[in-house]
Amino acid sequence: MSNSFGKIYRLTGFGESHGKAIGGVIDGVPAGILLDLEEIQRELDRRKPGQSNITTQRKESDKVVFLSGIFEGKTTGTPIGFMIENEDQRSRDYSHIKEVFRPSHADFTYQQKYGIRDYRGGGRSSARTTASIVVAGAIAKQILKEIDFQAYVHSVGEISLEKNYFELDLSLTETNAVRCPDPDTANKMIEKIEETKKAGDTIGGEVVCVIKNVPVGLGEPLFDKLQARLAYAMLNLPAVKGFEYGSGFEGTKMKGSEHNDIFLANGSTKTNFSGGIQGGISNGMNIYFKVAFKPVATIMQEQNTIDIDFNETKIKGKGRHDPCVVPRAVPIVENFAAMVLLDMFLLDKTHKI
Amino acid sequence: MSNSFGKIYRLTGFGESHGKAIGGVIDGVPAGILLDLEEIQRELDRRKPGQSNITTQRKESDKVVFLSGIFEGKTTGTPIGFMIENEDQRSRDYSHIKEVFRPSHADFTYQQKYGIRDYRGGGRSSARTTASIVVAGAIAKQILKEIDFQAYVHSVGEISLEKNYFELDLSLTETNAVRCPDPDTANKMIEKIEETKKAGDTIGGEVVCVIKNVPVGLGEPLFDKLQARLAYAMLNLPAVKGFEYGSGFEGTKMKGSEHNDIFLANGSTKTNFSGGIQGGISNGMNIYFKVAFKPVATIMQEQNTIDIDFNETKIKGKGRHDPCVVPRAVPIVENFAAMVLLDMFLLDKTHKI
Amino acid sequence: MSNSFGKIYRLTGFGESHGKAIGGVIDGVPAGILLDLEEIQRELDRRKPGQSNITTQRKESDKVVFLSGIFEGKTTGTPIGFMIENEDQRSRDYSHIKEVFRPSHADFTYQQKYGIRDYRGGGRSSARTTASIVVAGAIAKQILKEIDFQAYVHSVGEISLEKNYFELDLSLTETNAVRCPDPDTANKMIEKIEETKKAGDTIGGEVVCVIKNVPVGLGEPLFDKLQARLAYAMLNLPAVKGFEYGSGFEGTKMKGSEHNDIFLANGSTKTNFSGGIQGGISNGMNIYFKVAFKPVATIMQEQNTIDIDFNETKIKGKGRHDPCVVPRAVPIVENFAAMVLLDMFLLDKTHKI
Amino acid sequence: MSNSFGKIYRLTGFGESHGKAIGGVIDGVPAGILLDLEEIQRELDRRKPGQSNITTQRKESDKVVFLSGIFEGKTTGTPIGFMIENEDQRSRDYSHIKEVFRPSHADFTYQQKYGIRDYRGGGRSSARTTASIVVAGAIAKQILKEIDFQAYVHSVGEISLEKNYFELDLSLTETNAVRCPDPDTANKMIEKIEETKKAGDTIGGEVVCVIKNVPVGLGEPLFDKLQARLAYAMLNLPAVKGFEYGSGFEGTKMKGSEHNDIFLANGSTKTNFSGGIQGGISNGMNIYFKVAFKPVATIMQEQNTIDIDFNETKIKGKGRHDPCVVPRAVPIVENFAAMVLLDMFLLDKTHKI
Repeated sequence: MSNSFGKIYRLTGFGESHGKAIGGVIDGVPAGILLDLEEIQRELDRRKPGQSNITTQRKESDKVVFLSGIFEGKTTGTPIGFMIENEDQRSRDYSHIKEVFRPSHADFTYQQKYGIRDYRGGGRSSARTTASIVVAGAIAKQILKEIDFQAYVHSVGEISLEKNYFELDLSLTETNAVRCPDPDTANKMIEKIEETKKAGDTIGGEVVCVIKNVPVGLGEPLFDKLQARLAYAMLNLPAVKGFEYGSGFEGTKMKGSEHNDIFLANGSTKTNFSGGIQGGISNGMNIYFKVAFKPVATIMQEQNTIDIDFNETKIKGKGRHDPCVVPRAVPIVENFAAMVLLDMFLLDKTHKI
Repeated sequence: MSNSFGKIYRLTGFGESHGKAIGGVIDGVPAGILLDLEEIQRELDRRKPGQSNITTQRKESDKVVFLSGIFEGKTTGTPIGFMIENEDQRSRDYSHIKEVFRPSHADFTYQQKYGIRDYRGGGRSSARTTASIVVAGAIAKQILKEIDFQAYVHSVGEISLEKNYFELDLSLTETNAVRCPDPDTANKMIEKIEETKKAGDTIGGEVVCVIKNVPVGLGEPLFDKLQARLAYAMLNLPAVKGFEYGSGFEGTKMKGSEHNDIFLANGSTKTNFSGGIQGGISNGMNIYFKVAFKPVATIMQEQNTIDIDFNETKIKGKGRHDPCVVPRAVPIVENFAAMVLLDMFLLDKTHKI
Repeated sequence: MSNSFGKIYRLTGFGESHGKAIGGVIDGVPAGILLDLEEIQRELDRRKPGQSNITTQRKESDKVVFLSGIFEGKTTGTPIGFMIENEDQRSRDYSHIKEVFRPSHADFTYQQKYGIRDYRGGGRSSARTTASIVVAGAIAKQILKEIDFQAYVHSVGEISLEKNYFELDLSLTETNAVRCPDPDTANKMIEKIEETKKAGDTIGGEVVCVIKNVPVGLGEPLFDKLQARLAYAMLNLPAVKGFEYGSGFEGTKMKGSEHNDIFLANGSTKTNFSGGIQGGISNGMNIYFKVAFKPVATIMQEQNTIDIDFNETKIKGKGRHDPCVVPRAVPIVENFAAMVLLDMFLLDKTHKI
Repeated sequence: MSNSFGKIYRLTGFGESHGKAIGGVIDGVPAGILLDLEEIQRELDRRKPGQSNITTQRKESDKVVFLSGIFEGKTTGTPIGFMIENEDQRSRDYSHIKEVFRPSHADFTYQQKYGIRDYRGGGRSSARTTASIVVAGAIAKQILKEIDFQAYVHSVGEISLEKNYFELDLSLTETNAVRCPDPDTANKMIEKIEETKKAGDTIGGEVVCVIKNVPVGLGEPLFDKLQARLAYAMLNLPAVKGFEYGSGFEGTKMKGSEHNDIFLANGSTKTNFSGGIQGGISNGMNIYFKVAFKPVATIMQEQNTIDIDFNETKIKGKGRHDPCVVPRAVPIVENFAAMVLLDMFLLDKTHKI
């Protein structure tokens, strides 16, 4: 297992969906930073279940408790230990999957790899573990006060924004349940999710993240380029199938003469197909990237599958699940990006004497 | 700087485009493996410049010299040091960029981050550094004999294969200069590249990599999921703008009921939208992923830019550059993937007593 | 800060002396191991304060609570999160050191390095943090069932055992408060500590650790030799001033012809000046090492010192402190050694295909 | 294998005694530092064989060649690759140990661990590999210009300096072949070594290292305390059996009231039993530590041993070996310490925003 992320600013997480608690230790926290603990809780609340009727109805207050590393309101440079209790440990909900592998879940691979698994709610493979990322990211945001992180839902199934991030009013993102900054598209997305939910099905979607006011110089070539750290982070999120930044996959169709970002006299560039990163290092322009989330695997329909002894059987989702993961993914993507940038920010300090 | 990749099987690279040599140290090599050194050189030859008229005409024999770690033909478990001399050190080619930032290159960001840069041929930011990845990957392939790695060009600009990997005869990949397994599409791609080159321009493209015969259990959740390690690797390659695996970005449009891979009685799955990885761990099905490469930034056309003092100026590419990077990217992607899989393979051994 | 130890079996700790709790996350735990949780608590009880009249009278039950990673009594391969609440948070005891630097403590250096410090009980620099090491080590011991770890007190001040470990009956170690396996010497040591305590003073001492039944092959040259990992661990313990293994400092006076351990036909050696490690790798013989602990810095006598503004002032220890650290250090040394050996044991598995 | 040392300033070494070359890659080098390459070579010359009649007569010019990372005389922040060719590859010297395990060497453990070994000259276990440490340390010294590193021989066998480092004129260290700053003692040591050599035997000794002008704040508790990093480094050197700093093993006999270093009004301390480190962090006082080296295992006398099939046999050292390792260990200890301090210096920069 590999439950640490970050080279200097480093989260080490623990916890299963239906264990006593999830949480983690954040090491490498710069000292002397005044933290707004309520703001951290607000970020967690953006992720928590049950916040609207298009998310899972699991009941969790998701209150984070800090156990160390903060003294008289400030970071001391010592590790921040924290935990979030699992209140809703309805383990009986999961007895039906004790000996059955749910399709496209981690049940089969965990069982094969470790020879044992905590089957309750997916155990360690549950998306519940992403709450720890939000905590570490929310702290990173407060340390990188000048940098602005804004994620939003770009698409739900076939319903997609037609506009680029700079054509949108990102202050509207939090005004609707689906977290799409375009109100009309947001309504269509919500409708789509409700309709999908009613059918006992789920649907995928995309999240875009924009990072503004990034200092020049973040990223560590050759093997910790800034885009590589971001992709590494995002592909570790449950349900993520793809990552692109700047011109992304569309950029493969362009010519060099179209794609090159011409420098202006102030060091900025006329266009930004580079997505704010050149040679693996931030160039001061806006960073933007897109993350693809597949449809949630748990559906309220009967599916064929096999049990732990490879006998054929059937399974049907029970309980309270997200019909679409992207609205709750928005704060996760945003805060994970903040973790990455703070890590690269701190590492960059080591290049000068 | 961060010039190591891998947790157990670990390449630490060095070298600039026009320095004495590039090379590296590979640590964590399992002991007692008989190596075919000529096969490693063959992999390097697939990457080397000047191999066809659609690649750069830079002259480099790219002969790898092994300095340690191999005794009587076998690995000893000690680190393998190796180097590749830079024969074609025509530094005068680059005097025109000494004080000018080439658009969409790493010149600007390296200068700002480090306050100094080796401007000759891009220095450390040169794609020449990927030769070390090929060496480490070629050794990994020989250690993971059972696993089959096959990459190919999926698209060049708008010209794209319409077929999935399993509908193609991948044994044809090396039969043409562009490394596309469909001969007709290959011809169109080659034509496109030649036409682009004639116009003094460059073009992007996509590479698909397929990995067959992967054992179940590779990948280390939560933060070293197999897909995350692959994305981390690929986004560290020069010019890469995106990564997707399995259903990828298209999968975001699907419903759970369509996307779920139903288990068969033998533990395999009916479909493979998961791309051979579930919960971050290989499930034994084929792994496949796609990598997006932007057009090469060096074009033979005049462009506006700025110099090191932020004065406006003009620049025009000189010398010998690839009009399209994907044909030479094929062995790099393939071998980098092999590095990742071997690393995860070795790490997986630590979970059992 | 650097609060993780271990490369595969890895403890990441958190917590301050008078915060809510101390604890940690243990990653890299092999899966499927049945754990005896009471045995872990027994190891903690060997370390806890107040166990005899020659240790600090601080009141802490030191009950460890496991938060994750154990399912139906067994390890699952997921990280084990745990915490130990700080019950005795008598912060008022420490108001007198809020603005004063205690001599030979970490107050001055923490304040200078971080610009802030949790002064209550020494904060993160408190030896209380070693409880987390005991937890991680106690689990390691259960995983390495075959290996036998035995530490004991070798000296207190000038009172020292004259015998080597193999001349002692180590089963007697736990029969007295000072943890010295020779009853007569133990009595003298206890007397010495009581006398020192009465004088408001403290005294140093040495701990020896013996590891029997070690498999051949543990240790990772060049830079993670087994002795280097052990020294690295031990020198991280509060109050430790030195480490030696095998012949140690005395060995410097020997000739090669005396010091060389002659091989016997079964692969063992006639003598064991090597201390069970050759070339950084265990050779199957007993490993033994000695650790030097300085006298505790907190004394019940008035001392000159300076305050946070560098004004001269006086200070006198208050509260409940150990007059000699070695009796409680025994389980810490022993369990830290177990952490190191398990880590090297798991890493060694990666050398073979 | 674990062939990297350092967290930010990081050497990754390669090479065997009788392979083509030894060398390494140094990553994390701060940018813009003007390097004196001849000074690096001078440090290597202090370590090289054949420099006097009390060291091995192996012939190696030990010329370091830099392959990357230096441009127009300055570091660029990219990794410094370097190598030192093995000129004297007299492999025939070693045919007699191909199938025999030399007592107290690494032959047995390497063979058992890896199932294969490069037996020529000890392969990777040869002390020849320490040349790479000298290169990395010599660069570190030039980066940490203000800090003063001075090691010297404290004892050879029973012949020992009676004085502390501050009672010696350390500028005399390099005036004699044994590198002891007291001329009379030096003569006795040289005599002792010559006498030992004549008898076909070897002898151990101790090296003291003093580091002056260290900034306050270096060291990363809990698990990378400055003394722990130093011990970790030193115990990785061939033949090292022990490490102590400050009061060391003698300090265990002291009382707290004697051992505590009383602060003076300028923040310095009256005594320095702490050895310049408190709570794992440098306090600005001189750092000093002592390292114990056992006698070299290769002796020119016949010894009983076993062969690779565990048959009893005899062996006698051939060739050119050091009768005592400490004179050549002086520059290794000194430069390894410089590597450690630079690493901690760079890491310390990450604690402030």
